[in-house]
Amino acid sequence: MTKKEFADRQRRTADMFARAHIVITPEERGRIEIADLGLGDYEHTGLGILVYVNTDRVCAKELTLFAGQTCPEHRHPAVAGKPGKEETFRCRWGSVYLYVPGAPAARPLGKPPAGRERTYTVWHEVVLKPGDQYTLAPDTLHWFQGGPEGAVVSEFSTRSTDEADVFTDPDIRRAPEVT
Amino acid sequence: MTKKEFADRQRRTADMFARAHIVITPEERGRIEIADLGLGDYEHTGLGILVYVNTDRVCAKELTLFAGQTCPEHRHPAVAGKPGKEETFRCRWGSVYLYVPGAPAARPLGKPPAGRERTYTVWHEVVLKPGDQYTLAPDTLHWFQGGPEGAVVSEFSTRSTDEADVFTDPDIRRAPEVT
Repeated sequence: MTKKEFADRQRRTADMFARAHIVITPEERGRIEIADLGLGDYEHTGLGILVYVNTDRVCAKELTLFAGQTCPEHRHPAVAGKPGKEETFRCRWGSVYLYVPGAPAARPLGKPPAGRERTYTVWHEVVLKPGDQYTLAPDTLHWFQGGPEGAVVSEFSTRSTDEADVFTDPDIRRAPEVT
Repeated sequence: MTKKEFADRQRRTADMFARAHIVITPEERGRIEIADLGLGDYEHTGLGILVYVNTDRVCAKELTLFAGQTCPEHRHPAVAGKPGKEETFRCRWGSVYLYVPGAPAARPLGKPPAGRERTYTVWHEVVLKPGDQYTLAPDTLHWFQGGPEGAVVSEFSTRSTDEADVFTDPDIRRAPEVT
């Protein structure tokens, strides 16, 4: 993504935090991460991330998703004999459609990004509205998408090691590239 | 505390969450914990707690403190060979005065509850306003007090095991007693 795109996307994420009444510092504003996951289609595949803390033991973040924007299907496997990342998502603003293994939704509210449908394999639907949360056991396949207004979601987890994540879509690259 | 006191204190904590624009569910509203720490002086020693999640690995909570209300000095020691609880406090609303080991404040903003001064031994002052946060290593003595408006504070940590906490004040009892 270009520097201008990056700055614009950071601004949109900061605006969503403001709408959700989540106060962040100017320093935090400047290190909002824009993850486009290497597909170059941020409006459909990607998310905004602000990491509050990530120690050896604990991680806490805020995430933003635009309406219909998707964090693609992935899991957090065990690494070097340690159990994979455990995550709790708590919706703070808007709504989010979360998909996990289990009985598939007959009429899912979310829709994978066009052309990528085959890389979405779990279809048990959990709808999170403000105050709702869901805890994922390590190594559980999951993907999630912003609802009609988008979403601001808090994530409470064990240490984040993004480079260990396994995405179903082989075209995905976790590290962002700003050009 | 009486049932009426308990209900009134839960209501005040819920009101503070609402003021901080933190959305909680009716189920969560009903399980807000009122910790008076056995001293029977909740206006000065105590805090409101809503535990979002507490697994073997991760815990996330919201805490409330009234103006001048104090969570008394304590630490989280190692238990059964496992390192003690690690905590990050993030101020969401109001302000909080946090005290940890280190160079003592010349003119501290916080003040221990009357009659309990001798059970407050660490005086390095950290003032947290909305968006500010501080991470405590395990087994670090600490206490904190609500500023002039009180405070709403998010806590991100490893598993909470309150019964393992070591308080400096020998009169403190962690489990609340509602009569």
